Amino acid sequence: MAGNTFGKLFRVTTAGVSHGPGYLCIIDGCPAGLELSVDDLLPDLRRRKPGQSKLTTQRDEDDLPEIWSGVFEGKTDGTPIGISFRNGDQRSGDYGDIKDKYRPGHADFTFDAKYGFRDYRGGGRSSARETICRVAAGAVAKKLLSRIGVRILGYVTRVGDVVADIPDPTAVTLEQVEATPVRCPVPETAAAMIDLIDAVRKDRDSIGGVCEMVAVGVPPGWGEPVFDKLKADLGKALLSLPAVTGFE
Amino acid sequence: MAGNTFGKLFRVTTAGVSHGPGYLCIIDGCPAGLELSVDDLLPDLRRRKPGQSKLTTQRDEDDLPEIWSGVFEGKTDGTPIGISFRNGDQRSGDYGDIKDKYRPGHADFTFDAKYGFRDYRGGGRSSARETICRVAAGAVAKKLLSRIGVRILGYVTRVGDVVADIPDPTAVTLEQVEATPVRCPVPETAAAMIDLIDAVRKDRDSIGGVCEMVAVGVPPGWGEPVFDKLKADLGKALLSLPAVTGFE
Amino acid sequence: MAGNTFGKLFRVTTAGVSHGPGYLCIIDGCPAGLELSVDDLLPDLRRRKPGQSKLTTQRDEDDLPEIWSGVFEGKTDGTPIGISFRNGDQRSGDYGDIKDKYRPGHADFTFDAKYGFRDYRGGGRSSARETICRVAAGAVAKKLLSRIGVRILGYVTRVGDVVADIPDPTAVTLEQVEATPVRCPVPETAAAMIDLIDAVRKDRDSIGGVCEMVAVGVPPGWGEPVFDKLKADLGKALLSLPAVTGFE
Amino acid sequence: MAGNTFGKLFRVTTAGVSHGPGYLCIIDGCPAGLELSVDDLLPDLRRRKPGQSKLTTQRDEDDLPEIWSGVFEGKTDGTPIGISFRNGDQRSGDYGDIKDKYRPGHADFTFDAKYGFRDYRGGGRSSARETICRVAAGAVAKKLLSRIGVRILGYVTRVGDVVADIPDPTAVTLEQVEATPVRCPVPETAAAMIDLIDAVRKDRDSIGGVCEMVAVGVPPGWGEPVFDKLKADLGKALLSLPAVTGFE
Repeated sequence: MAGNTFGKLFRVTTAGVSHGPGYLCIIDGCPAGLELSVDDLLPDLRRRKPGQSKLTTQRDEDDLPEIWSGVFEGKTDGTPIGISFRNGDQRSGDYGDIKDKYRPGHADFTFDAKYGFRDYRGGGRSSARETICRVAAGAVAKKLLSRIGVRILGYVTRVGDVVADIPDPTAVTLEQVEATPVRCPVPETAAAMIDLIDAVRKDRDSIGGVCEMVAVGVPPGWGEPVFDKLKADLGKALLSLPAVTGFE
Repeated sequence: MAGNTFGKLFRVTTAGVSHGPGYLCIIDGCPAGLELSVDDLLPDLRRRKPGQSKLTTQRDEDDLPEIWSGVFEGKTDGTPIGISFRNGDQRSGDYGDIKDKYRPGHADFTFDAKYGFRDYRGGGRSSARETICRVAAGAVAKKLLSRIGVRILGYVTRVGDVVADIPDPTAVTLEQVEATPVRCPVPETAAAMIDLIDAVRKDRDSIGGVCEMVAVGVPPGWGEPVFDKLKADLGKALLSLPAVTGFE
Repeated sequence: MAGNTFGKLFRVTTAGVSHGPGYLCIIDGCPAGLELSVDDLLPDLRRRKPGQSKLTTQRDEDDLPEIWSGVFEGKTDGTPIGISFRNGDQRSGDYGDIKDKYRPGHADFTFDAKYGFRDYRGGGRSSARETICRVAAGAVAKKLLSRIGVRILGYVTRVGDVVADIPDPTAVTLEQVEATPVRCPVPETAAAMIDLIDAVRKDRDSIGGVCEMVAVGVPPGWGEPVFDKLKADLGKALLSLPAVTGFE
Repeated sequence: MAGNTFGKLFRVTTAGVSHGPGYLCIIDGCPAGLELSVDDLLPDLRRRKPGQSKLTTQRDEDDLPEIWSGVFEGKTDGTPIGISFRNGDQRSGDYGDIKDKYRPGHADFTFDAKYGFRDYRGGGRSSARETICRVAAGAVAKKLLSRIGVRILGYVTRVGDVVADIPDPTAVTLEQVEATPVRCPVPETAAAMIDLIDAVRKDRDSIGGVCEMVAVGVPPGWGEPVFDKLKADLGKALLSLPAVTGFE
């Protein structure tokens, strides 16, 4: 089954691999009349971009979107919003050393087993770079939701054993989250998280953590009974991210 | 959006409320040629049935299924499998005291907000009795999967702070799980769990726990990349159960 | 792909074969608050029932529906509407002479090729008796649509070369349609159609015709651009009926 | 409901309007291992292109596709195939005279009623230029189907009252179809059709016709019983084209 579409009324379809020409994203179901431009997408795309600090993947990516459709005279027109992201420099040889090896913790073996071969240049379709499309679609969704008073914010509450104490999640601000590269809104905890990540990195290792997401202003009754409960759809959305292994 | 269907190639649609005439379940996409009868559904339906011990909901339910279609001469015929469960005695007055009160921890308020009224007789559509349909569909799926060597088993690993030590999850047997009403395969831990539940019940309270599910023999490549990853679909399935609040 | 579901927001799933225990129908997505009872389904179910005249299939069927869910205190409650139809007397031997023969113009060979065997007792899943579920779902849809002023009526305009002249399709009434068993609202043309069918029947043959359906009061903008245009969805719905071979 | 996706196992999603930057097309579900390049798309794209003769819409379009994903080392890789088509010169003023007028026979009024405004620059999302995406997806599908011996060909059999006599539809060749701009494989009939179209055009009118499509080598059992019959899905696909008003 084709698995590159998410959502029903607001539906996102993506294509693209990490080392091909780029990514395409089609957002179907956004109502007409929402003011939208590339500038609405950039803040979240910049937050997603790797290589912003020493803490995360050290890779430079070109994340400038082009909107192909769905916006007319500065507003959404009810037709599907088409967005592309051209991948940057694809130097051959970049990933040559892993051409014949499956990387642990990646989907390399799985892809080979499923499709008969794999894109040895990198993560291919399973690369986390695909989230560039989700972030763009999420930026549109966030803007749409904000019109009816729904506000969404996420932040890191835990890295390894370092846990942040956040008594009132609804009081956390974007500025607090963005104050440190680890995106924990409690400055002292953020500093301890950074120290821990640096220590782990010196051992050529990585370390997991916990994110918390807060949605304020959600009206009662969203989601559907039985199979499409809101918690179930949120769980699926989060668990479909490569790095996410749990949802509560 | 209608949310009473789950799955794509093997697709389950259910209808019914806890205090109406009964439940209907349609399983679409089961291949032809699988031997199937009511007897294949009964073991798991019996395991689901409340009121089997003092540990769980004290309600007697009549869970005998009737197969309306999809089986011809003892084998599935490729057409949708229709199953009904008639609800037992629906005494008026059973739930009368809660007619004007929202129950905490239930979807009563949500239903009222969403639909403009609610089925005050009980959980209505949000009642966990709806799982009777999922259990029947799951029994069909389990039998289908067993033909290609996939074996699935679940058990309780934790109740409150009582945690079972299960060094090899693939070695757990159905007999071990069924040996105690709490369905923890480690006898001593099961006894401690039962003591804890009894103690909590005396305080007119309930207590949560953790289940672990093991699937053995799953071929590589199942699930779809990006949005419909196997972990994402499993997460959605589990999180759509009323009582489930987390998935790992 | 499981193909027993139609629609998105208002979604109908059916199960059942002509010579099994009966049919199940689940209507998902009907809004709460619509007055509904079995009495709302009976008029259209009676119109569907074969054997009402000498003109159509000479088979007696028991078409009494049972509503299992989705209606509470006389109104829809927003949960899926479950309906069953128990098949009448299933005498063994009824269809015995065709056990080893594919019937021309039926899906017998196709089912055998697709599933590896077929339900030799009759049309099985491809029997037009499945329309009993669609008629019930359609009765619910018609009642729902009538609340916003949409009125739908169909009638026969042609049998063989006998063509009715209907200058104003919106003026045709249900009474005119029901006045004759051939359901052509022009009495003289209806009489000619009946004569033609009788003549053809004497040759042990059957004859095709044309139906016209009129929907009055449809607001502009229904349907979706591109793939889910209203004409495309209507076309699919009609063409999915066994006997329909064209749509205009 | 978002209506810009067609298909289930092989699923096409499109975005774009006639006078925006261009079109995006995502083909999800194409198996890995199919040799594919832009050259496989060009023949059918060239056949679609308007302005090839005096007979059809007199507009020049730039239909060169760019493949963004889904192809690796000359073969499909099982991931979604992303294709873009950049629209050519979008001179402002091209369509200025119709800014304040609804065009008869177009979806102008419908779009305005549905979305609150319309893309006055042209057909917008309802423009037949959207078929550029379908043609590309169809070219991929045709190549895929040809691997299992399914061959598909379409041609014009009627324009106005000029009807072609084609005794053996399976014997028609692509060369015969392409021999004339009207794409009727019978030379004399094609000439008469061209004369008729020219005559009608002089009256500043247009004229309808009939296409016939032939699929050879289709295995028995394709399509699904009940709602997703092959004839129903083909009917929906064809009827979703702007100009198609009937299907047989």
